[in-house]
Amino acid sequence: MSNPPSPVPAPIAAILVIGNEILSGRTQDINVQFLARRLGALGIAVREVRVIPDVADTIIGTVNELRARFDHVFTTGGIGPTHDDITSPCVAEAFGVPWEPHDESMRQLEALFGPGEFNAARRRMATLPRGAVPIPNSVSVAPGFTIGNVHVMAGVPRIMQAMFDALEPSLGRFEPVRMVAVHAERLGEGALAEGLEAIQHAHPSLDLGSYPFERPDGRRGVALVAKGTDQAALETARQALRALIAGLGREPIDGEPAP
Amino acid sequence: MSNPPSPVPAPIAAILVIGNEILSGRTQDINVQFLARRLGALGIAVREVRVIPDVADTIIGTVNELRARFDHVFTTGGIGPTHDDITSPCVAEAFGVPWEPHDESMRQLEALFGPGEFNAARRRMATLPRGAVPIPNSVSVAPGFTIGNVHVMAGVPRIMQAMFDALEPSLGRFEPVRMVAVHAERLGEGALAEGLEAIQHAHPSLDLGSYPFERPDGRRGVALVAKGTDQAALETARQALRALIAGLGREPIDGEPAP
Repeated sequence: MSNPPSPVPAPIAAILVIGNEILSGRTQDINVQFLARRLGALGIAVREVRVIPDVADTIIGTVNELRARFDHVFTTGGIGPTHDDITSPCVAEAFGVPWEPHDESMRQLEALFGPGEFNAARRRMATLPRGAVPIPNSVSVAPGFTIGNVHVMAGVPRIMQAMFDALEPSLGRFEPVRMVAVHAERLGEGALAEGLEAIQHAHPSLDLGSYPFERPDGRRGVALVAKGTDQAALETARQALRALIAGLGREPIDGEPAP
Repeated sequence: MSNPPSPVPAPIAAILVIGNEILSGRTQDINVQFLARRLGALGIAVREVRVIPDVADTIIGTVNELRARFDHVFTTGGIGPTHDDITSPCVAEAFGVPWEPHDESMRQLEALFGPGEFNAARRRMATLPRGAVPIPNSVSVAPGFTIGNVHVMAGVPRIMQAMFDALEPSLGRFEPVRMVAVHAERLGEGALAEGLEAIQHAHPSLDLGSYPFERPDGRRGVALVAKGTDQAALETARQALRALIAGLGREPIDGEPAP
């Protein structure tokens, strides 16, 4: 007789958004939510997000801090061909390796642009830290890359998403954190707080939270959410959340099960 | 004769988003862009954003790190009435002060809810770090607060925005960083990179960048952006960006001037 294998501890991840355009408010980031959902579905929990400017010392220091603290670091932004795209050489410096032409990527990009159009700026996109493994993308061909536990991706959402599709199979799959949500309209958090805390105490393996919402049509309410890996506990928590709302005279509405 | 006063150095700020719902991807954050734009208009530059979970040690440590490094720290999230709303006691602990009932806020919230409905959960929202100055809000009455250089606000965007409206006059006004943008359709960054770098070298007081875009109708192109406080340099940069695009056979399109 053999025992079942111990579950592998779920990896934890940080997302590092590199770009002045997010910090100035010029651009609304949508990459964090995409990555958080896709990683969550793999059982990889995002535990921190940072947004930092295109400043070399800041990028190098932050990459080194985060790669020491998390199993995976996913960066977005700063790998295009222009002078302000400095993520790739900064990651090389963070790892203490040369930043050098990557032969296969050079060939691919030269074939794409044609020899006459493959200028110095475009060659930057085929220049990688030594030892990096390119992350291909079907949209723009210019690769991201993985070095150590750091995955360097584009900032343009369509390109980043294509890179993540290519990267995903190498990340593994772990016990995903599941979530149940029960929505209550026309109730405030203050009326629900005591009951919610009691349900939290009764389900110590779960993480209970409440999130006020406002629908586009103006209806307001609160989403009560339970998260965890224990499917049976999630189901009893869902029933308890429904009973809490019903006991306050409102109709409990099951929310979407996805993260 | 007196010289004009030296310009006050523009303050720098960090935004700290506290909330599991952003890290899980359940919720799309929109507070960062709002704050970045409004602060930018005051001449206060956001230099870092962090998103962290509802974990006490993480909140306390991050608040203390950021308040030491930035002139202002703006937090969003975790100040509601439920058990997972722990931002306020954590900020008290970060500052080493008691977390205690705030008389005026207690009176306001009791008047709002009525004595019978002003339960323990709701009293949490009128419990503040000693010495904190409440930030009123016209939406939910429950206050945010300022302590030292840390401004603690709600996570619900409508409430956070009302708090920021109340807070804004106390933040001062500084020389704002202005921005000009020129858009080029059907051009890639790789074709523009060399010319853009030359314009950057010619305008060392400005910060030049390029940002690929895709319109909802599928049109693609690049936004060339110059930022700085020198209005004359911005205007010559705008002309140079227009000439760069025109020289590549495309029509330069002036973008919106706002950040």
